[in-house]
Amino acid sequence: MKLAMLSIGFVDFTTPISHATFKIRGDTVIVFTTSDISCELQRAIANQTKSEVVQNKISKLNQKDKSKAEILITYGNFDDAITAEDISQLIHLKWIHVLSSGTEQLPQEAIRSRKIHVTSSKGIHAIPISEYVVCSILYFAKKIEEFRKLQKQRAWSYSMGMSEIYGKTLGILGTGYIGREIAKKAKALGMSVIGVNRSGNHSDEFDQIYKVHKLKEILPAFDYICSVLPSTDETKHLIDRGTISHMKDGVIFINAGRGDVAVEKDLLESLRTGKISGAALDVFEEEPLESCHPFWAMENVLVTPHASARTEMYMERALNIFLDNFKYYQDNDLKNMVNKVNFQV
Amino acid sequence: MKLAMLSIGFVDFTTPISHATFKIRGDTVIVFTTSDISCELQRAIANQTKSEVVQNKISKLNQKDKSKAEILITYGNFDDAITAEDISQLIHLKWIHVLSSGTEQLPQEAIRSRKIHVTSSKGIHAIPISEYVVCSILYFAKKIEEFRKLQKQRAWSYSMGMSEIYGKTLGILGTGYIGREIAKKAKALGMSVIGVNRSGNHSDEFDQIYKVHKLKEILPAFDYICSVLPSTDETKHLIDRGTISHMKDGVIFINAGRGDVAVEKDLLESLRTGKISGAALDVFEEEPLESCHPFWAMENVLVTPHASARTEMYMERALNIFLDNFKYYQDNDLKNMVNKVNFQV
Repeated sequence: MKLAMLSIGFVDFTTPISHATFKIRGDTVIVFTTSDISCELQRAIANQTKSEVVQNKISKLNQKDKSKAEILITYGNFDDAITAEDISQLIHLKWIHVLSSGTEQLPQEAIRSRKIHVTSSKGIHAIPISEYVVCSILYFAKKIEEFRKLQKQRAWSYSMGMSEIYGKTLGILGTGYIGREIAKKAKALGMSVIGVNRSGNHSDEFDQIYKVHKLKEILPAFDYICSVLPSTDETKHLIDRGTISHMKDGVIFINAGRGDVAVEKDLLESLRTGKISGAALDVFEEEPLESCHPFWAMENVLVTPHASARTEMYMERALNIFLDNFKYYQDNDLKNMVNKVNFQV
Repeated sequence: MKLAMLSIGFVDFTTPISHATFKIRGDTVIVFTTSDISCELQRAIANQTKSEVVQNKISKLNQKDKSKAEILITYGNFDDAITAEDISQLIHLKWIHVLSSGTEQLPQEAIRSRKIHVTSSKGIHAIPISEYVVCSILYFAKKIEEFRKLQKQRAWSYSMGMSEIYGKTLGILGTGYIGREIAKKAKALGMSVIGVNRSGNHSDEFDQIYKVHKLKEILPAFDYICSVLPSTDETKHLIDRGTISHMKDGVIFINAGRGDVAVEKDLLESLRTGKISGAALDVFEEEPLESCHPFWAMENVLVTPHASARTEMYMERALNIFLDNFKYYQDNDLKNMVNKVNFQV
């Protein structure tokens, strides 16, 4: 377990979790709502924070744990959703650490009114998502799907070749942690890399950065386009029939940000005509993607279930941010915590 | 056409190839034996060298071209094989430029006895093959095959994750042009990279280099192993049951060098048991891979038909080496030609 190696000097793996009660803050209880966390990681967190760690859905906590819970660690969405009612049950709750990058899924009003601190796991997605994007670019360039088809036919073909990404141009919509990590890797692979963001401010990882309102001017230059944009009023439906018409014929589109950045029916149409020759889509307007959606059956669309960030390192990285912040929490030095989220109106 | 942009100052695209006879060496004839070369590239070579370019199999050349042919450009193998008899037909042949990296396929004795100069296209495989290797590593790490299967079932799964290559260890057998380019890219993607070669001499692109006779000591460290070794007496069957037994359980194996580096039945066996969990194989003991070979049907084996170097840039890069050498040939300064091959015994 790397968490221990990275940030925990001493972990007593022989201590069962129920006895991990070196209490420095009286009887601090940390509640994990997700079952994704392994016993080893729970134990490591207990040891590192000298707290009691409880893993359960809030509705299923016993009365004692509910009344003592001071810190909540949660994804806050899907199976692990947190309601205002949940928050009201935890009368001593002071801090929520969210295991995802976004926090819009939390019951914001309930949190705001109680002045509960919130931190996110922003930044931990850069490595896995950048790997997914590079994988997708190469998957299409090297024609892996086509070669897999030949393989099924046991056909040795000297005529089908691969393409190169060296010297090709990648447009990256979004220049935050993830966009910059993609840019760095794509450049190391010999691509030209152009970023698109709101400000147009330069960032060293890119060859050039364009303001989003100049997107249509630069779109024809891209052989590959990837979006890692979040869902906001400004990004919603940025990729529509009009934008697509400015793209190079046969471009590859990769979406590892949020699904509603693209108008899905326009994307679908352009993938059918070949205007966009291939797409790797990890996010969709509605998730899970409904079972009758045409994307599932399209050979030129690689569908993954919002999985690009979901790697063996996810929880460890998210918890290392938590542990770093825990030191400040312990010292009541909350202003120095990283990834603070402000729900003030 | 990039060749023109890269290295040809002036190309008269309006001149039909049969009239491209600006002769500076009397009536130099350059013969291309492969039909892979486009008319545009033939014309560019004619203009650049101010020679007559003929494309045909040697047996089909007319008597005049046979007697005048001074330079031969050929793959020299498979469909494009050259025999001693072919060489004897070209009585004024002085130089063979081979469009591949290896030249062992040529009729060496016939060439040696006539003191014909030979150059290869060594080095041009580094970019495409390194891209193929990185693609293969990510293809397995990101579980693309498994996600494609889920896609066919229209199954949205929150439980299947991807793996990361960041922090993993790649062993590269062979530290020439190709091995070094792979190393550079893998390091930029956050991998630890260990090379294996004959000398053990260090090369900056690698974290460490081991001598091949210490292979078994270092094998257990590799999460991914790729071979870009040529076929020699020393490399033949280097990967056998014994070597494989030292590998990490579940390792990924990629072969983009020569097929006979691995004992195919041992490789097959280990892929069946899962000792090697996946393989990307672009080369085989016998090519084309016979249609009843078990590799074709294995889900954990990606079979490609010796295609990893076959990209849109191949011919242009190979001919740029030829053109660089042509300048020296013209000046009778043969010692400065690059990629010279010596067939002396």
